Amino acid sequence: MGQIMTRLMAEKGVDIVGAIGRSANIGKDLGEVAGLGYPLNVLVEREEDRVLETRAADIAVVAVGSYMADMLPHFRRCLENGLNVITLAEEAVYPWKTAPSIAAELDRLAKAHGVTITASGGQDVFWVNLPTMLSGASHTIRSISGFVLWNINDFGPEVAKSAYVGWGKRDLEEHLKSHPLPPSFGKNAIQEVAADLGLTMTRVEEVNTLETADVDLECASLGVTVKSGDVIGRSELVTIETKEGIQLSMREGGRLYKDGESDVVEWTIDGYPALHLRCDRVPTQIMCCTQMVNRIPDVIASSPGYITVDQLPKLKFRAAALHHYLST
Amino acid sequence: MGQIMTRLMAEKGVDIVGAIGRSANIGKDLGEVAGLGYPLNVLVEREEDRVLETRAADIAVVAVGSYMADMLPHFRRCLENGLNVITLAEEAVYPWKTAPSIAAELDRLAKAHGVTITASGGQDVFWVNLPTMLSGASHTIRSISGFVLWNINDFGPEVAKSAYVGWGKRDLEEHLKSHPLPPSFGKNAIQEVAADLGLTMTRVEEVNTLETADVDLECASLGVTVKSGDVIGRSELVTIETKEGIQLSMREGGRLYKDGESDVVEWTIDGYPALHLRCDRVPTQIMCCTQMVNRIPDVIASSPGYITVDQLPKLKFRAAALHHYLST
Repeated sequence: MGQIMTRLMAEKGVDIVGAIGRSANIGKDLGEVAGLGYPLNVLVEREEDRVLETRAADIAVVAVGSYMADMLPHFRRCLENGLNVITLAEEAVYPWKTAPSIAAELDRLAKAHGVTITASGGQDVFWVNLPTMLSGASHTIRSISGFVLWNINDFGPEVAKSAYVGWGKRDLEEHLKSHPLPPSFGKNAIQEVAADLGLTMTRVEEVNTLETADVDLECASLGVTVKSGDVIGRSELVTIETKEGIQLSMREGGRLYKDGESDVVEWTIDGYPALHLRCDRVPTQIMCCTQMVNRIPDVIASSPGYITVDQLPKLKFRAAALHHYLST
Repeated sequence: MGQIMTRLMAEKGVDIVGAIGRSANIGKDLGEVAGLGYPLNVLVEREEDRVLETRAADIAVVAVGSYMADMLPHFRRCLENGLNVITLAEEAVYPWKTAPSIAAELDRLAKAHGVTITASGGQDVFWVNLPTMLSGASHTIRSISGFVLWNINDFGPEVAKSAYVGWGKRDLEEHLKSHPLPPSFGKNAIQEVAADLGLTMTRVEEVNTLETADVDLECASLGVTVKSGDVIGRSELVTIETKEGIQLSMREGGRLYKDGESDVVEWTIDGYPALHLRCDRVPTQIMCCTQMVNRIPDVIASSPGYITVDQLPKLKFRAAALHHYLST
């Protein structure tokens, strides 16, 4: 994701002044690491503090992990150095229920330094703003239901491992009794939908499903063939009840695909009138990065604090270089 | 449409203080006219000026005609009486290219009276804001193409007549040589898309297509059966070129349906990445009204002038009565 975003930012005229990385990329030029074919004259460095303290920048683009507890030290360092932050961290899309004290600390810190922290990515348009905008045609709503499916083979081996690809279903069910699954990403997105609609959440329920197939499927990222009946991924159904009586739910998951399948984002509003929207062949990985890059000017322009995407302007295409969208 | 909107407004707690109508409804209670089953204690009146001059109100909901030239006197009266205006008039969605002097006059008038005039309706979310929001996931765009299909049988006989339903195709082609078709509604919507994206329009092209079917189809609104091969509706393809090299197009039309067909709104973005969104079973008539009613608080809260929907906040569901969304 960092490689893709680097290329997108370079092509949108972003002046990249520092890069913090891990492992094998340290000391290389960021343009080389991102496969641009030309140097950016920015070396990938290991020393987070030194990079943040010595470079003047408008914003830090943070793609490290998914959960607030893991991300807190990274976010904190950026904000303390007076940098706005935009991140792909999935829990950060709406952390006020799942990590409220961390969110509150970051909100205070951002305000104290006059900067903004926001999570964007695939959630921004596809998981949050499309359904809430679709609801603009709703007179009454009984439920809003989302369905998101993505291809595990589009991501690295860590993602396939975290979805237990290749496990026998019985073995995995036994294993999960003592090794609970990590919290879902759909939960934070659907909570952000509730927040955007001004609904008061009462109960949240999560149900996990292990996905299997009736044919053998290749897992490219692990380099194995998963036998028919074994685990090819998992999905989580998150359901939120609200004080207003509107039920919000989202089924979200990644798995291996049979021939002809593609990434899907689908939203159904049950109410008056019934509304339905479906995106097929969703380019999940790329669109996570394009949205985050297009969001950069909004985050820089936003009022300080922990700002979720419902509080920002409608995300849209940036025909010009990103600095054209910053008021001087 | 006026009947549906009256019901929606009544159910969202709008205090309706006057109603202006034509023909057979004059003198009846608006609740009766709208089929509510209860009175609204507002009589439908004929005298536009008297109603506008004698009632204090926040906004006038104007559903009379489609074109700016026809609507100008109605809009003018409302604005001169210090009322905000929201309308379903299709040309009003973006009148700055097709009726620039009327738009400029209304803009001046609205500003002089400290009020706002906006067109909403089906265009708001489905024809304008969905594609521009989808473009928030675009890094580069070659073209944005829309497809909108609606059922002529959902509307009255005037709509079926204006689409020449039941004409022989050859006869109609001959007739159209001396009776040109009225301007399309898709043009104003796709121009509003261009405006929302900050693109500079250069060339506009419109191509009309007469739609026929290979089976006989019923036209309920005209009470006739249209023979196989005769005209069941028409569609217009509007294509806009822009200085930025991005092509915008929209094919929009109404016709009779074969079994199993439903209203469609579909948007395709050709670029990096490729993006696609489709709404099936679109409740065209209802969603025109629901969106316009949900937009009311935004129009009242807007800065004065002729304001198009790209300049307003993201439209979304109003869980509470509309007055809750007005700051005091």
